[in-house]
Amino acid sequence: MVNVAIMGHGVVGSGVAEILINHRDRMSKAVKTEVNVKYILDLRDFDGLSYSDKFIKDFEIILNDNDVKVVAEVMGGVNPAYEFVKQCLENGKSVVTSNKELVAAKGAELIKIANENNVNFLFEASVGGGIPVLRPMVQCLCANEITEVAGILNGTTNFILNKMIVDNMDFNDALKLAQEKGYAEKDPTADIEGHDACRKICILAALAFGKHVYPEQVKTEGITNITLKDVESADTFGYVIKLIARTKKLQNGKIIASVRPTLVSRDCILSNVNGVFNAVMVNGDMTGEVVFYGKGAGKEATASAVVADILDCVKHLEARKYLDWCEGENDYVDQGFDEKQKLYVSVKSDDYNDIEKQIQNLFPQNENSFIKNQYGGEIVFITEPDFEKNTTAKLKQLKNCSYKTLQVIGG
Amino acid sequence: MVNVAIMGHGVVGSGVAEILINHRDRMSKAVKTEVNVKYILDLRDFDGLSYSDKFIKDFEIILNDNDVKVVAEVMGGVNPAYEFVKQCLENGKSVVTSNKELVAAKGAELIKIANENNVNFLFEASVGGGIPVLRPMVQCLCANEITEVAGILNGTTNFILNKMIVDNMDFNDALKLAQEKGYAEKDPTADIEGHDACRKICILAALAFGKHVYPEQVKTEGITNITLKDVESADTFGYVIKLIARTKKLQNGKIIASVRPTLVSRDCILSNVNGVFNAVMVNGDMTGEVVFYGKGAGKEATASAVVADILDCVKHLEARKYLDWCEGENDYVDQGFDEKQKLYVSVKSDDYNDIEKQIQNLFPQNENSFIKNQYGGEIVFITEPDFEKNTTAKLKQLKNCSYKTLQVIGG
Repeated sequence: MVNVAIMGHGVVGSGVAEILINHRDRMSKAVKTEVNVKYILDLRDFDGLSYSDKFIKDFEIILNDNDVKVVAEVMGGVNPAYEFVKQCLENGKSVVTSNKELVAAKGAELIKIANENNVNFLFEASVGGGIPVLRPMVQCLCANEITEVAGILNGTTNFILNKMIVDNMDFNDALKLAQEKGYAEKDPTADIEGHDACRKICILAALAFGKHVYPEQVKTEGITNITLKDVESADTFGYVIKLIARTKKLQNGKIIASVRPTLVSRDCILSNVNGVFNAVMVNGDMTGEVVFYGKGAGKEATASAVVADILDCVKHLEARKYLDWCEGENDYVDQGFDEKQKLYVSVKSDDYNDIEKQIQNLFPQNENSFIKNQYGGEIVFITEPDFEKNTTAKLKQLKNCSYKTLQVIGG
Repeated sequence: MVNVAIMGHGVVGSGVAEILINHRDRMSKAVKTEVNVKYILDLRDFDGLSYSDKFIKDFEIILNDNDVKVVAEVMGGVNPAYEFVKQCLENGKSVVTSNKELVAAKGAELIKIANENNVNFLFEASVGGGIPVLRPMVQCLCANEITEVAGILNGTTNFILNKMIVDNMDFNDALKLAQEKGYAEKDPTADIEGHDACRKICILAALAFGKHVYPEQVKTEGITNITLKDVESADTFGYVIKLIARTKKLQNGKIIASVRPTLVSRDCILSNVNGVFNAVMVNGDMTGEVVFYGKGAGKEATASAVVADILDCVKHLEARKYLDWCEGENDYVDQGFDEKQKLYVSVKSDDYNDIEKQIQNLFPQNENSFIKNQYGGEIVFITEPDFEKNTTAKLKQLKNCSYKTLQVIGG
């Protein structure tokens, strides 16, 4: 029998407890030993559950119980999760977590501590919820050099954009609906501003390329500026707008990493990821593009990924899983985005005729693809592939107007 | 250092040798020990390679060399692969294979022998080529009870159907093109008659549900009867035709397992899997639908999956991977297909007016969805969901006509 402790009894934590306790036989069969939930740490009271006797309020009980070999951290947030996880690892306990904020902030350090103490630190549920991504990337693609990872990593924003695309709903209405359905928090900032996706791409980049990427190094842009007009224009060009998190290895050893609303060509499989679903595309030099798709959130899906990690720790009490990266560096993430790409440009002005002339002069080759909305004083187009800094420099020459740009993939 | 042997130097085998030898440092880094290719078994001569000195023609050399801990079987076919693999396992060597025919025929037996000898028998490359499927299904979804697996498991037939759908090419022309491009063999029977997909769904069913499924238990139908007219009609109904391999657990403990040309609703992510790509959908009671997508064949992709298995064996020389199923049973696969489903029906007759009346009488509720082709003497429609035996019984009442049916998913 192996004893485990669960820290946190929120949405995911209660899911983990329920799976381990209600499906005890299934779990035991999977690892050929009994898996016993010994403690559940939560400051709140949970009376009337079949397992109410397992609740404790003092972390030290878990820390000092040598019978507890595996701890699941499902509290969320960096503090006190970081201190708790660190101490558990130092005390020879394997830890699994669904906490993307923690892993994105402290992953390299916690992996190092796990290594030093010959225990495991696993976090499959931190990216893609119930979708297997991290383990297959590390294990099944280990003969590959991974060159790029890109995906739809946030279900809330994908739901909102999907409603705008399919039902012509504007951003605020779609957000409200997402909140009503429980897909978006009351304070939706972390989702709609891209922070959640940013943490996940940090973890994917670290695993893919072996070096920690900190959230503040990632160019992160949310979806709050996307209008129905953008959605319609994208459709006319053969694209859909998705919030794409992406990281790519550059030839100079640096990487790029970004979270940006992006026009995705309808040919690309990511354009067909709808509703709250997530998908992660991994490009390896041997396998080419591989995509993992499924529910990126939700109590049961996320909890089942945490449980899979717990079971993996139970099977590997004496062995180390090879899941590794080192600390990051200041200039590791290239802020210049030096790869040629198309950009979607939307320019608005009070003087339509003037702005049309200005754009024609700067981007003569694009004229055939202009979408003109004379009455709105707006011109929308997709540029030829160029370095983003070049396109941006041209746009800065425009006078008496406002503009925005979006990344373009495929097509 | 760990010594490995490769049996077979065909497309996949040469890929495995090249990865292990040319990317030796990458492999060593992944498993923290050197991986050395000691022998390559092939009856043919391969002069002029950088590793020509490794070739041998006598299997006994591998079998009796106690320094060889891991053997890759990439010869294909059941014999002599079966005898070679069995003897290696019995001699305490872990074996990895890409050979779906072998695993579908002898998987349960070889797993048992591996268990008894405390070695590993891995076969990730046997399903989905370079796409990680088996390992994520067993490891990452281990907290789930898997209820259904369905997928596009054969790239050749998907390429042909895709050409019919997108380019209006007829079956024979599309097959010829596939052969020219190297996607189809000179004798394409195994692909176009569904045998290749059948072997793969046997392996997936065995892993998902724990009991061996033999190819002859799977209702297998190829794509040779699919016409351009079917493709067009499907499109009118909002579907695309795909060769779907599928297995599902029934409440009575039995399973269904089939390979059938299928109308897949455009809403379903599998409908967007184009060209030679493969995708496997796994439905778990916790995670819901998860899809794995990528290149299902090709030298480098398949070889990289074999190499990942080799590296996994190297890491687990002293430990058993939990990958397990038991021998099958005669009546385990339900041949009745007792689940209600829609069917696509195409009926042809010389007397159009007569056949229209007959169909109206038998399927009155479907009349609005009839696609009538009076000059071709043909009526096409999709039935209401019903047990297939009921629909088939009705169709048998039709006189003076010929008909065919296809399975329908989604929509």
